Amino acid sequence: MSLPLEPPAAPGSADPHHPFDQAIALVSAGENRWRGATSAAYANMVGPFGGVTAAQALSGVLRHPSLLGTPVALTVNFAAALAPGEFEVVARPLRTNRSTQHWVVEMLQGGEPVLSATVFTALRRAGWSADDAPAPAAAAAHSVPRMGQRARVAWVDRYDMRFIDGALPTEWNGEPGAARSLLWLRDAPPRPLDFASLTAIADAFFPRIFLRRRKIVPIGTVSMTTYFHADAAQLAIVGDHHLLGEASATTFQRGYFEQNARLWSERGELLCGSHQIVYYKE
Amino acid sequence: MSLPLEPPAAPGSADPHHPFDQAIALVSAGENRWRGATSAAYANMVGPFGGVTAAQALSGVLRHPSLLGTPVALTVNFAAALAPGEFEVVARPLRTNRSTQHWVVEMLQGGEPVLSATVFTALRRAGWSADDAPAPAAAAAHSVPRMGQRARVAWVDRYDMRFIDGALPTEWNGEPGAARSLLWLRDAPPRPLDFASLTAIADAFFPRIFLRRRKIVPIGTVSMTTYFHADAAQLAIVGDHHLLGEASATTFQRGYFEQNARLWSERGELLCGSHQIVYYKE
Repeated sequence: MSLPLEPPAAPGSADPHHPFDQAIALVSAGENRWRGATSAAYANMVGPFGGVTAAQALSGVLRHPSLLGTPVALTVNFAAALAPGEFEVVARPLRTNRSTQHWVVEMLQGGEPVLSATVFTALRRAGWSADDAPAPAAAAAHSVPRMGQRARVAWVDRYDMRFIDGALPTEWNGEPGAARSLLWLRDAPPRPLDFASLTAIADAFFPRIFLRRRKIVPIGTVSMTTYFHADAAQLAIVGDHHLLGEASATTFQRGYFEQNARLWSERGELLCGSHQIVYYKE
Repeated sequence: MSLPLEPPAAPGSADPHHPFDQAIALVSAGENRWRGATSAAYANMVGPFGGVTAAQALSGVLRHPSLLGTPVALTVNFAAALAPGEFEVVARPLRTNRSTQHWVVEMLQGGEPVLSATVFTALRRAGWSADDAPAPAAAAAHSVPRMGQRARVAWVDRYDMRFIDGALPTEWNGEPGAARSLLWLRDAPPRPLDFASLTAIADAFFPRIFLRRRKIVPIGTVSMTTYFHADAAQLAIVGDHHLLGEASATTFQRGYFEQNARLWSERGELLCGSHQIVYYKE
């Protein structure tokens, strides 16, 4: 794609040459409307990696001149696999209150909707707080070996993953496995964390069914919701360090399973909780 | 309200005289468009109980002549407190595939959006399944006393709640408490379970911050996502029996906390997982 890139609207730390920044670059195409393109660097088996698609949808809100505050909740519904090439993002502020804002987003290709999303943003203030989801114990990131690269799909190589528990099976033998994973992960090459990259990282956990069944079956995330517990200043402090991620699944029923994930900073702050419902084929 | 009630489109078991059926009754107002009204029987401190508002939004999809399958995922964003009285629901099928359908929903009052929602529905098929979230051990519902009635807000009396753990504090002393609850609950009076009532029940857990802080502070659910793991036949088998519900919270940060809930049938089937992000005031 030779889409003209707009300088990133995000903090000065963003690097326009990083593949993630290139992937989420959008150009204005009128009121509430943006144009972008899929990125070969984040290709998946069928269509692009959903985490980057979600970040592209959010990007339309993050660049919007009317944006109030930072993202608190994001739900993305994947209605169709994106074809390689251009897409449009329509990001419309539905309702703006004093310190909060509700957004409705659609992504289209050839005029057909391929994604819907809702975003809630808010000005956040410090106050009473409590953390009841402490980070699990884990050896330091630098002491855990990085997963081998040259994955079957491009997007996997865009993440530095260091598994403490629940790596992909070495034998795809169809025996029952455990669905939980615990790992350090960050962008590869490293990139300072922001809301767009955190959105994508929250989707970078392999589908739990691959681990649970020790078998590759056709899957697709249908809907993903991420709750952001950190503000922009906290993400800036994380910088390009690894995040600790935990992913698990509750139940696999009638073609859909629920996957739950959490991401902490190295300092142990819960940055986000993320949930998704995933289609699987028998 | 003297809104003319339409006979419920739902299964024959629905009772048009039940307050919940009256609350979720909608009348057609053109293509993709429905009219309904808030229900005094489900009033909350400010505006109506969000669980019933979510069910009213879903009701526009459940009654839609183009509906394919049953709900798998529902996200509801509460953009403003509803005023007592009429509302409009606009439920639009965004994309229909062979066995799945994506919906975008808005609720309006006086032409202003008060809620946005997305719904994913699908035809579900039996196949490989696994349940990794078994129901917690709990004494039988009939052996656990029902919480006292005549609550401060009307909606609480519309649910039969039997707490095994994590009831509301008897002393609001501001001392740190545990955020987790385990309880049996069902509609009061009893009503056969369906997707609309399960949606509302998933929001019937008291805000975790009340238990965590042993203090009542102003709160409001901002966004709620429910994943349905059961199909209509499974819900029909549950009938009007109690569900076992568990609710907890991860973190309370900068004015928002994440609440997670699960609901099982008496037979121990996980019927849904539900997540929400809730505003709180210091």
